[in-house]
Amino acid sequence: MAEIIKKMLAAIEQDLQSKIEHERNDQNSELIAMMRYHMGWEGEMAGATGKRLRPLFTLLSTQALTSPGLSPDHWVNALHAASAIELLHNFSLIHDDIEDNSDTRRGRKTIWKIYGIPQAINTGDAMFSIAHHAMYSLLDNFPAEIVARVSEQLLRTSIDLTNGQHLDMKYESQEDLQVSDYWPMISGKTAALLSACAKIGAILSGTNETTIQRMAEFGKYLGLAFQVQDDILGIWGKEEKTGKSVASDILAHKKSYPILLSLGKRGEFFEAWQNMTFQPGQLPILAEILTKDGTYKETVNKSEDLTHQALALLDSCGLRGEVGEQLRLLSHQLLQREM
Amino acid sequence: MAEIIKKMLAAIEQDLQSKIEHERNDQNSELIAMMRYHMGWEGEMAGATGKRLRPLFTLLSTQALTSPGLSPDHWVNALHAASAIELLHNFSLIHDDIEDNSDTRRGRKTIWKIYGIPQAINTGDAMFSIAHHAMYSLLDNFPAEIVARVSEQLLRTSIDLTNGQHLDMKYESQEDLQVSDYWPMISGKTAALLSACAKIGAILSGTNETTIQRMAEFGKYLGLAFQVQDDILGIWGKEEKTGKSVASDILAHKKSYPILLSLGKRGEFFEAWQNMTFQPGQLPILAEILTKDGTYKETVNKSEDLTHQALALLDSCGLRGEVGEQLRLLSHQLLQREM
Repeated sequence: MAEIIKKMLAAIEQDLQSKIEHERNDQNSELIAMMRYHMGWEGEMAGATGKRLRPLFTLLSTQALTSPGLSPDHWVNALHAASAIELLHNFSLIHDDIEDNSDTRRGRKTIWKIYGIPQAINTGDAMFSIAHHAMYSLLDNFPAEIVARVSEQLLRTSIDLTNGQHLDMKYESQEDLQVSDYWPMISGKTAALLSACAKIGAILSGTNETTIQRMAEFGKYLGLAFQVQDDILGIWGKEEKTGKSVASDILAHKKSYPILLSLGKRGEFFEAWQNMTFQPGQLPILAEILTKDGTYKETVNKSEDLTHQALALLDSCGLRGEVGEQLRLLSHQLLQREM
Repeated sequence: MAEIIKKMLAAIEQDLQSKIEHERNDQNSELIAMMRYHMGWEGEMAGATGKRLRPLFTLLSTQALTSPGLSPDHWVNALHAASAIELLHNFSLIHDDIEDNSDTRRGRKTIWKIYGIPQAINTGDAMFSIAHHAMYSLLDNFPAEIVARVSEQLLRTSIDLTNGQHLDMKYESQEDLQVSDYWPMISGKTAALLSACAKIGAILSGTNETTIQRMAEFGKYLGLAFQVQDDILGIWGKEEKTGKSVASDILAHKKSYPILLSLGKRGEFFEAWQNMTFQPGQLPILAEILTKDGTYKETVNKSEDLTHQALALLDSCGLRGEVGEQLRLLSHQLLQREM
């Protein structure tokens, strides 16, 4: 791992901890403990913190676009925004786990499973508030106009997240969906936050408006490509790599890209889907049908198209030096995950 | 009702509607409908909108402290903040209703009761995001420094709300509480948001720092007094006025001010509380014990002390004209509610 990535990850983790710790008072030690547990800092299997990809994208975007005259440590000024984004991401995970009835995350019990739904909802709300509040620490290093702009952007992204999550839940009980219904859902759920990372990072770099918009688009396509890749893994991924069983998205009746694509063909998979109760033993056969009817190939093509668009947008931004190289590398890693 | 109050209430309702409507897109009509239902604009018993006291306090604070040179309609500029506060209040109601397992609010089914917990959590999150996002519309009329200050304040208030709600839920299963545990809970749950109304209103008026701090304190004491009054109604209130049965807080084992006060006396009420299963028939007797042991008198005294402090702080702020009079009147109305 490059030295700059190590430095950024250490700084992110420290800043995240201090943002939560700052809220400790004489009465709320259990609230703080729930947030610290979710963040992976305490409780069983402490250290399971997640990869912190979103704050890393934010800081790399800031530094890679910073004009050469500025400090090689300009990214440190953007840390508050990086933390805000990661806290917002974690707020959404806390609430998603309740909404999706998920018992575990990163191999550990979810907050609601340990502390009950009421405290878990409120802990998510606390993390949401701390996330957005963190943006105002940027006032130490940026003019109020810039702080207002990036704070407004993060709240816009929060609204997008709730739109995406609304559709995801609504789709669970909806069977007349098309591939066109897929995009607004993942635009909110996955692409909006990655777009915000790149855009907010760019704004804090002091770069021009064209580059800011390109970075926002880059983040969006990165998110879309990432989600379609994730959908591929949800059907054809190897269990030892993904931690999920083969074709788990079929078992969960998830309205993923390949599933909606194949349902639209009104073929063998569509017939099987109608009966709706799959036995785990059938799953490899169903995955095989999706390969035979061309869905696998078309999904991979779509993912490659989106990846290509994301990387072309990134390349058009004129990234600087080693940090720019790291941002390119991280994007490639994210998009070309092993199956 | 005074003309200015009518004007403000109409403007608040219209602005609230437009804030939600602004978020409508081709995919989210059900999400918008859930928010509109909660706000009282559609569904069964549409028109049950709540009193909009918090945004009214905000606008009256702004206008009553505006320097005479400014427009008599300066409060219109603060509407975005008033709406943000009311939306934040309603977000907290949506989540509180899930957390408290409440089936009805203002005589109507709660969102989670109609649409299920997952969608209700997410709808609350959407309203939370729209609330804070609304603050940035202030940029049309105020400099970024001011907008950043009031937005930061509202997020600080959100954190306070989650601290208060955390304690309220934690106290449900905690029996070793003192009166001193009561204040941090209601400071977060009730006083923080009323304090934010008065403080944000004051900041947007352009008044001096001393007045801003006094208004924040006024709002805080107003909130504390209001909550202690509410606790009085929760035990000694008449059903036909409050919509709740007599002594309903005893039945619910709520850790209200009079209950904690009397438990601390380790007397007859304390003995009765230990057995923990009250029959509705016992409730008037228990309320009578709380009157006999001096708790009623002491609670009324505390409420009057807090009211006095709130109103003295308000009087020290030099409120102007008819609008100032309306702010005083509204505070009196809030604090001297009939039993």
